Amino acid sequence: QIDGDRLWDALMEMAKIGPGVAGGNNRQTLTDEDGEGRKLFQSWAEAAGMTMGVDTMGNMFFRREGADPDALPVYVGSHLDTQPTGGKYDGVLGVLGALELVRTLNDLNIKTKHPIVVTNWTNEEGTRFAPAMLASGVFAGVHEEDWAKARLDAKGKRFGEELKRIGWEGEEPVGARKMKAFFELHIEQGPILEDEGLDIGVVTHGQGLYWLEVTLTGKESHTGSTPMPKRRNAGLGMARVTELVHEVAMDYQPNAVGAIGHVEVYPNSRNIIPGKCVFTIDIRSPSKETLDTMRERIEDGIDTIAEALDIDVSVDEVGHFDPVTFDETCVKAVRNAAERLGLSHTDIVSGAGHDACWINRVAPTAMVMCPCVDGLSHNEAEEITKEWAANGANVLLQAVVETAGV
Amino acid sequence: QIDGDRLWDALMEMAKIGPGVAGGNNRQTLTDEDGEGRKLFQSWAEAAGMTMGVDTMGNMFFRREGADPDALPVYVGSHLDTQPTGGKYDGVLGVLGALELVRTLNDLNIKTKHPIVVTNWTNEEGTRFAPAMLASGVFAGVHEEDWAKARLDAKGKRFGEELKRIGWEGEEPVGARKMKAFFELHIEQGPILEDEGLDIGVVTHGQGLYWLEVTLTGKESHTGSTPMPKRRNAGLGMARVTELVHEVAMDYQPNAVGAIGHVEVYPNSRNIIPGKCVFTIDIRSPSKETLDTMRERIEDGIDTIAEALDIDVSVDEVGHFDPVTFDETCVKAVRNAAERLGLSHTDIVSGAGHDACWINRVAPTAMVMCPCVDGLSHNEAEEITKEWAANGANVLLQAVVETAGV
Ligand SMILES: NC(=O)NCCC(=O)O
Ligand SMILES: NC(=O)NCCC(=O)O
Repeated sequence: QIDGDRLWDALMEMAKIGPGVAGGNNRQTLTDEDGEGRKLFQSWAEAAGMTMGVDTMGNMFFRREGADPDALPVYVGSHLDTQPTGGKYDGVLGVLGALELVRTLNDLNIKTKHPIVVTNWTNEEGTRFAPAMLASGVFAGVHEEDWAKARLDAKGKRFGEELKRIGWEGEEPVGARKMKAFFELHIEQGPILEDEGLDIGVVTHGQGLYWLEVTLTGKESHTGSTPMPKRRNAGLGMARVTELVHEVAMDYQPNAVGAIGHVEVYPNSRNIIPGKCVFTIDIRSPSKETLDTMRERIEDGIDTIAEALDIDVSVDEVGHFDPVTFDETCVKAVRNAAERLGLSHTDIVSGAGHDACWINRVAPTAMVMCPCVDGLSHNEAEEITKEWAANGANVLLQAVVETAGV
Repeated sequence: QIDGDRLWDALMEMAKIGPGVAGGNNRQTLTDEDGEGRKLFQSWAEAAGMTMGVDTMGNMFFRREGADPDALPVYVGSHLDTQPTGGKYDGVLGVLGALELVRTLNDLNIKTKHPIVVTNWTNEEGTRFAPAMLASGVFAGVHEEDWAKARLDAKGKRFGEELKRIGWEGEEPVGARKMKAFFELHIEQGPILEDEGLDIGVVTHGQGLYWLEVTLTGKESHTGSTPMPKRRNAGLGMARVTELVHEVAMDYQPNAVGAIGHVEVYPNSRNIIPGKCVFTIDIRSPSKETLDTMRERIEDGIDTIAEALDIDVSVDEVGHFDPVTFDETCVKAVRNAAERLGLSHTDIVSGAGHDACWINRVAPTAMVMCPCVDGLSHNEAEEITKEWAANGANVLLQAVVETAGV
């Protein structure tokens, strides 16, 4: 059994770095605050007797030796970066839960057969630099490293430069490590577990996703003196696409979701008809077929909308992953752990993308979820209880120990 | 006849101050560039023998003495401030056309009976500080000066502080001046004159307007893991309101227009359902009844939309003027001038708000319009020809001289 108080203290300590404006966190990837958070994590991990490796994407790996040093390590972790208005647990619980697991093994003087490696993946959130799960994606061979390093933030800063600037570009080649398995603990970020009064989600699948960046170009002109039939209103086009995305998602729910979260309107003046809008569509489904059908319907619909309004359109894919089926053996280890601990549980599909979704391509992988209050995440008010966190970390401990052997 | 080349040179010279990014201007009110533009205008007006007065709202008045110094002056002018992505003529033509008119009277050694006062009104555009036509509104007694000075820009800067900062807060009380009449020359900002191949618009009416700032508050949450029925999507609400405004305007066009030009989305992240949207509706009509009906339908519609999406709503009026009927005698002076000059003309309703619309409440007022290419305004690509500008200024000259007497 892990130490729930110690885990909670670590979460609260980490949350002091990059505080938000409403009780949560703004510790976006590759900011000074991200650098500071990494340092604190490093100090804790080294104090727990682990040795650090950092790859050229800034992914951090802390190794606890196994009885058989040549055996493939069991990896366990998540991410320390947050949304601009993020919570204290999204990602962080998975990293500090993994640290707590090692601290517990130390306390109990347990040596596993396989080494254990606690991991912090760089830029999971993808808000500052799209796409999400960028560095685990490079690790898994999904993205080219050069391409990833050339990602720009809204101010035109490069991922590669910012990684250097905060001093966390390591020397180790990305993706060189081989894993026996990877486990990630994460808050659910949705309402199912809390609604059903369950302790643990055994994640069997992850939804697939498309992020489509749409640019609509009409004609910026005076709102008062441009007759209605002469308008080429890009803002009206964006409104119709917003409704379309919602309609399409509603047609396939509960097996689909969709919304537009990020928009830029030009020139954004009260009395000017928008001449240009740039925005990102986020659509998801656990079924690849559904996901692709949604995308097709939306792209066709955008063309129809643009034609009716005499506006030009371009669509770029800025994020994509296929639905994921996690590894049967690892999933069973998670389910067994919950059983053994007498925790109520259900099989669940992850609505969000996670580093585990990419790592699943190169190693047997599974995830543990714990509830969060009101299903709320990507919100500073994100909340969990100490008990939920401890339950999740205990399941993680059991699953990792079962896989790593004693 | 005015000197068309001299007027054009002055327009091009002024356009060098606060250049835009695409050939137009960004000389927003109370910026350093606005200060610089005012200085240049002052130097020209003083060189033309006029004496300056500045009121506590920064309105500038240059007086050319009349034969009867006790007779009420004829005022003539417009505004030098621009949109953030504005053109070189919107407002500027009316100020420099008035200056050219005085230069021409000087050349011809003509003394009018009534003095002539060339005017630059502060903050006509209203983009930086809402509402538009702020200082002419205070002059006309529509707004309290204290309220006007407390207007904030997007960065939280106060109108009053910024006016002091650029050094253009005068000492003269606002609205103390009495006028025999006020004339304003302006580009049409719409396509009618060009489409019909006409030289001059004789402005008989101005549309009324409401600017309604809407705040929709839903719940910021994860796009991937929040089930569709659990969402409180403020962005979807904004989309529906955008469509509603368009529909309502379409129902009453050609006697109405409407659009949403300014939007803010929070937290504006690709994978977060918008928790809050703030945006401004701009609706206009030459009929007060239509305008009020539109507003009612839109406010009712917003409530319905908000209820369906379980989001909260508040609506603030941040700009308003009633439709305007300009002074019959002044309008006739403009029409006569076009006739005398052999210029083709039509009576026209101004789609945009103008300082003249406020001044019409405290003095007999009329406006002259000249065409602009493609009806385009509030766009850096706004364009007119030297001939159109000269025609407009000639009509202005004739109308002012007829009214001021020789
Ligand atoms: N878990 C999480 O919020 N990941 C960010 C990528 C996504 O939007 O799913
Ligand atoms: N003429 C002009 O563009 N005025 C600004 C106020 C308005 O939007 O009508």
